[in-house]
Amino acid sequence: MLFFRQSDDETNKMLPFKSLTSSKQLTPEIIETFFTVTDKMAADIEAKGRIDLLDDKVVALLFFEPSSRTMMSFQSAAQRLKAGMVFAQNASSTSFEKGESLEDLIRMVEAYSDIIVMRHAQQGSADIAAGISKVPFINAGDGGNEHPTQALIDAYTIHKEKGRLDSLNIVFGYDSLQSRSIHSLSRVLSQYEGNRFTFTGPKELEPSDRLLADLRATGTECIIANEVNLHDGYDVAYVNRLQEERFENKVIFEKNRQKYRLNRVDVENSGCLILDPLPRIDEISTEVDDLPNALYFKQASHGVPVRMALLAMLLGKA
Amino acid sequence: MLFFRQSDDETNKMLPFKSLTSSKQLTPEIIETFFTVTDKMAADIEAKGRIDLLDDKVVALLFFEPSSRTMMSFQSAAQRLKAGMVFAQNASSTSFEKGESLEDLIRMVEAYSDIIVMRHAQQGSADIAAGISKVPFINAGDGGNEHPTQALIDAYTIHKEKGRLDSLNIVFGYDSLQSRSIHSLSRVLSQYEGNRFTFTGPKELEPSDRLLADLRATGTECIIANEVNLHDGYDVAYVNRLQEERFENKVIFEKNRQKYRLNRVDVENSGCLILDPLPRIDEISTEVDDLPNALYFKQASHGVPVRMALLAMLLGKA
Amino acid sequence: MLFFRQSDDETNKMLPFKSLTSSKQLTPEIIETFFTVTDKMAADIEAKGRIDLLDDKVVALLFFEPSSRTMMSFQSAAQRLKAGMVFAQNASSTSFEKGESLEDLIRMVEAYSDIIVMRHAQQGSADIAAGISKVPFINAGDGGNEHPTQALIDAYTIHKEKGRLDSLNIVFGYDSLQSRSIHSLSRVLSQYEGNRFTFTGPKELEPSDRLLADLRATGTECIIANEVNLHDGYDVAYVNRLQEERFENKVIFEKNRQKYRLNRVDVENSGCLILDPLPRIDEISTEVDDLPNALYFKQASHGVPVRMALLAMLLGKA
Repeated sequence: MLFFRQSDDETNKMLPFKSLTSSKQLTPEIIETFFTVTDKMAADIEAKGRIDLLDDKVVALLFFEPSSRTMMSFQSAAQRLKAGMVFAQNASSTSFEKGESLEDLIRMVEAYSDIIVMRHAQQGSADIAAGISKVPFINAGDGGNEHPTQALIDAYTIHKEKGRLDSLNIVFGYDSLQSRSIHSLSRVLSQYEGNRFTFTGPKELEPSDRLLADLRATGTECIIANEVNLHDGYDVAYVNRLQEERFENKVIFEKNRQKYRLNRVDVENSGCLILDPLPRIDEISTEVDDLPNALYFKQASHGVPVRMALLAMLLGKA
Repeated sequence: MLFFRQSDDETNKMLPFKSLTSSKQLTPEIIETFFTVTDKMAADIEAKGRIDLLDDKVVALLFFEPSSRTMMSFQSAAQRLKAGMVFAQNASSTSFEKGESLEDLIRMVEAYSDIIVMRHAQQGSADIAAGISKVPFINAGDGGNEHPTQALIDAYTIHKEKGRLDSLNIVFGYDSLQSRSIHSLSRVLSQYEGNRFTFTGPKELEPSDRLLADLRATGTECIIANEVNLHDGYDVAYVNRLQEERFENKVIFEKNRQKYRLNRVDVENSGCLILDPLPRIDEISTEVDDLPNALYFKQASHGVPVRMALLAMLLGKA
Repeated sequence: MLFFRQSDDETNKMLPFKSLTSSKQLTPEIIETFFTVTDKMAADIEAKGRIDLLDDKVVALLFFEPSSRTMMSFQSAAQRLKAGMVFAQNASSTSFEKGESLEDLIRMVEAYSDIIVMRHAQQGSADIAAGISKVPFINAGDGGNEHPTQALIDAYTIHKEKGRLDSLNIVFGYDSLQSRSIHSLSRVLSQYEGNRFTFTGPKELEPSDRLLADLRATGTECIIANEVNLHDGYDVAYVNRLQEERFENKVIFEKNRQKYRLNRVDVENSGCLILDPLPRIDEISTEVDDLPNALYFKQASHGVPVRMALLAMLLGKA
């Protein structure tokens, strides 16, 4: 657990931390609390469209790396809660480039807002920012390091469908080496008993020894498989796209692109839930989209109530 | 008439469609309904500044092509109705470029919002998006194809001043070949009886045979004229700028730029209303601006109540 | 005093002008009124987070030059007052570049909003815009010319701490030649009696003869000093960064960068308040940050209530 400077005028009853920077903060107990608040937020969207819960707050959205998906999801969460918003977007063209430090920037933005959401290309920037900020801080992705709100969304989606986060037979693919989504989700789920993880994908993109060691240390069974048949009793397949630039040559990339791709026949009647943090490129055929176990768009839609819950809880309002 | 997937939880009493993608959807009956709601919105802005009508809704603004004018007009409409807003701007620097399809993008944004407004460079993108979206969709310009809200604004402006959309003697210039504003407005007005259209401008930029054939098929008289004198009983002149890149050489462009330009003497005491979708470059001299029949800035201002009306009607709230 | 076109439907009881474009408009009497309203706004943020004062208004933010700092501060001010907002950002990629005049642009934006805030690279653009606009206009920086809201923030910060704006012993550094912040603040403070200004910094960046003449004409004592010791009875040091591109060669720049820099030993126990319009680069060591007289982050935080006061007063709502 990380500890951050506590602001004087903000008390926060539901969470033992003031800022969320890492999926390591997401213990089973905290996740359970999140799910309860997220369910309430989803019901409020459904019933009322928008609620007044944060209409006395201002949310700062600092996206120093392009990410329309996460950006729009946080915007929607803030707007559904009627919070005010201030933006700094496209930092490459802003005054933030003049040599100002991240610390100075955060000290300024904390004066303009009640909570800060930041995406930043630099690994570790979230911890620096959270350590400085007097107002609560949310890491919306810091380089290849962490993206804890994605892990919350993914866990919420699985729990919503399966009713549990333990005793699950889960496939992760296809870039387990570099995907911060796979890292975060597998670490979160490794806290629960009886899960079995099968990592599949190109040889070059197998999970790191360190990740495997950490997961196995929790007692979670981890398997590396060249190929997987989703009809063999898997509960969840969590897949992401292959990135061409990771491959030495186009021929090998093309071979892998063809091989690591879910077609309708792979998914239909498997009973296995298909998740994808999106954007989807070639890893799932569009023929899969209308199958009942294709969950990726529903998963994306959970981003709004999950982030509403997080904003409200960190502001002591949930 | 186009038909789109109907969402389960949205009923829409005032319009026979869920999304607006084409000026072909704008029948005289629908236009009349629009004008009534637009008048009400204009009165509400005047009296109250902003109204609560959409304060339980979130509007997504997807501008994948620069268009501050249309973008700001839609923002103002949404804010005057107290709707929440989510943005994706400057898509060239966003994750939307990673190879994700427009279909996937819309499926994501529909989860973040209650209605989607999109400008996109690709002709036909609006129909694709409207066909996918579960929430109402508005085309804010798809390449050289359609810009139906501009046609609504133009028709509203003429009706406001003349009290009718029929029996009008209208000049269109100066680029009738490529202007989607001229295409859309002429098609809309060709549904009314007794209109006469005179197209003027450089030879190179005369309307296409297809447009002329379509307009004439409605019984509308269409004339091509090298020159026009606005004092010869014209009711409306709808002009736009010439684009230098359309001309083979600078000399021909310069000659046309000088010739197709409204000066004060052309407009004063003509009784002819001057409209321009803006931006104005050289097609109207600034000496014209303070004449009572110079309507282009008033026309721009109608963008807000027209778009308020559209948002409210498509959301079943007007 | 400048005079602008008065709109018919806006009365403005607290200010003798409709638009703020220059620090020359900021007389001691007006500044005093501002301070009273700013104090009220600061108390409202503290007590309520956001207030309904401008919830019937729409603020247009036109930032045609990157300035995340000023932009976010104005956004926060508008959101704390629950005003609606419309944006045009990154104008380099917008339709505003197509050759449209600033005059036409303002005529359009005034139809989308109730007040316009603009930053523009071109010196004098603010006066052009304010002269055209039917709605109140605020200059958020026009090239090297004026940035009157920064002067208000700086004066407010000094007054908050010292209880007065007269009889102050003030150091200005380190680029007094080109800093519009130093120009504006020194001109504002020269209206008060008994102030003494010491300009320090590289020889190349001394204040212009014209500025010195203007300041001395008010009776303000002005001194040029190669070096200054803050322990010699100074009340305020207002410093900004040196810009490398202003120097002929890197060696001279580097020498000046080392010399004109406040370290902890320079500031501690001096009793001199340290202000900086930010961003801070090398002009103040981070060791200074936690000293009680390091005021620059508090100064930045005053930007929100100061701009709230200005928006409210220009809209006749304070």
